Amino acid sequence: MPNYRLTIAFDGTDYEGWQVQPGKSTIQGSLMEILSRLEGGREVKLTGAGRTDAGVHAHGQVASIQLGKEWRPRELVKALNGNLPPSIAVLGADVVPDGFSARRDALWRMYRYRIIHTRDPLLARYAWLVEKNLNIGLMNEVAAQFLGRHDFTSFSSAPDDAERSTVRDMLEFAVAAEDNGYTTTVRADGFLTHQVRFMIAVLAAVGSGKMTAEEVLVILERKERGLIKGMAPAQGLCLEAVGYPET
Amino acid sequence: MPNYRLTIAFDGTDYEGWQVQPGKSTIQGSLMEILSRLEGGREVKLTGAGRTDAGVHAHGQVASIQLGKEWRPRELVKALNGNLPPSIAVLGADVVPDGFSARRDALWRMYRYRIIHTRDPLLARYAWLVEKNLNIGLMNEVAAQFLGRHDFTSFSSAPDDAERSTVRDMLEFAVAAEDNGYTTTVRADGFLTHQVRFMIAVLAAVGSGKMTAEEVLVILERKERGLIKGMAPAQGLCLEAVGYPET
Repeated sequence: MPNYRLTIAFDGTDYEGWQVQPGKSTIQGSLMEILSRLEGGREVKLTGAGRTDAGVHAHGQVASIQLGKEWRPRELVKALNGNLPPSIAVLGADVVPDGFSARRDALWRMYRYRIIHTRDPLLARYAWLVEKNLNIGLMNEVAAQFLGRHDFTSFSSAPDDAERSTVRDMLEFAVAAEDNGYTTTVRADGFLTHQVRFMIAVLAAVGSGKMTAEEVLVILERKERGLIKGMAPAQGLCLEAVGYPET
Repeated sequence: MPNYRLTIAFDGTDYEGWQVQPGKSTIQGSLMEILSRLEGGREVKLTGAGRTDAGVHAHGQVASIQLGKEWRPRELVKALNGNLPPSIAVLGADVVPDGFSARRDALWRMYRYRIIHTRDPLLARYAWLVEKNLNIGLMNEVAAQFLGRHDFTSFSSAPDDAERSTVRDMLEFAVAAEDNGYTTTVRADGFLTHQVRFMIAVLAAVGSGKMTAEEVLVILERKERGLIKGMAPAQGLCLEAVGYPET
């Protein structure tokens, strides 16, 4: 059976996250329902590179699937988009080697997190409103502390032992100023449960003077869950891209 | 009673337009309800510079209102935003001279219209999806034909005689290419009912080769309603700014 890789964008506002759950509206579930229909009702298995939380968006989620039918990539994209709601779009499809898995073969995931500092109704679904000036220099200092290989246990909300390894390689983490706020770009080989949202929360805390860079380092080094109070809200987060060996 | 000018942004997706209508959810209605509450239940009159259609957005709608209470502008903004849903925001407030009217004193209104040419779930609420390449050179040729004073009757959907004058002064009309589409900026002393959406529809028709610039000119010169089939959808349109003598 030919194996396909799909690049997917979605507005996560009205979904209970990526992962299929019985009785709930999810992005994976919506896609699998259509894919299964295109396969004549056969059950299909769609593997996503990232499991985004409820309310998180994507511009470049990647998923793989084996289909019985041979499709020209363009036709597959058309057939899917023709059946999807405006909140989900398949941006592209490729035929990939049999063994390819969007999850296992991913080298890195890149997320963006958007903070605005004054109300903007046209960004309300896509940004976190923080109504104070943040010190971008301090935020970038903290971000730099995370670069490289670390045990990120303190930044996970998964139960103990739920994650096989809590070590991740942080490849990129930087804040850039924008018109009305800040966009943070973060890229790693993988992320623990809620890791990005915890990291953004401490960044904002440091930027607004509620925490120091040293305190963040202490939390990182303690490798202990539950030390961080509150995480950045889901709607500011967007899965931008997933990297693979050949890209 | 002190007179205030408010600058307002909104996501129009879930509203039946700006103008208050009994039993319907409108932006003017939502604001007046809160303003009236702040005035202890007194009926208030909020005058907007532009009456946007259902589904149209704004970054810079301007409205004026007389209030019995004296407010510091900052406090008024805070009190309003504290009661508004995320889809509406008051960006600023000024105290203005007694006779000031946001509608009567406006020199011009500026709108932007966004077209995307591939699906993008994060722009689905804010752009018109036109899945073909448009010739931007031709579109700008047509746009230039509209500049200056013209009788725009052919571009109005109001009943005959509903508009006191159908002559408008087109100050700016140009299309710029973007990442995934086109943004059109249009500015005039005022617009007839649905005028911008009719103009964008003919621009797109010319850009895709369905109409010629000459045919558009003929329509403009016939000064006759009903010649244009279909208008561009509301969601691509945004009221960006309103100009006043002192700005």
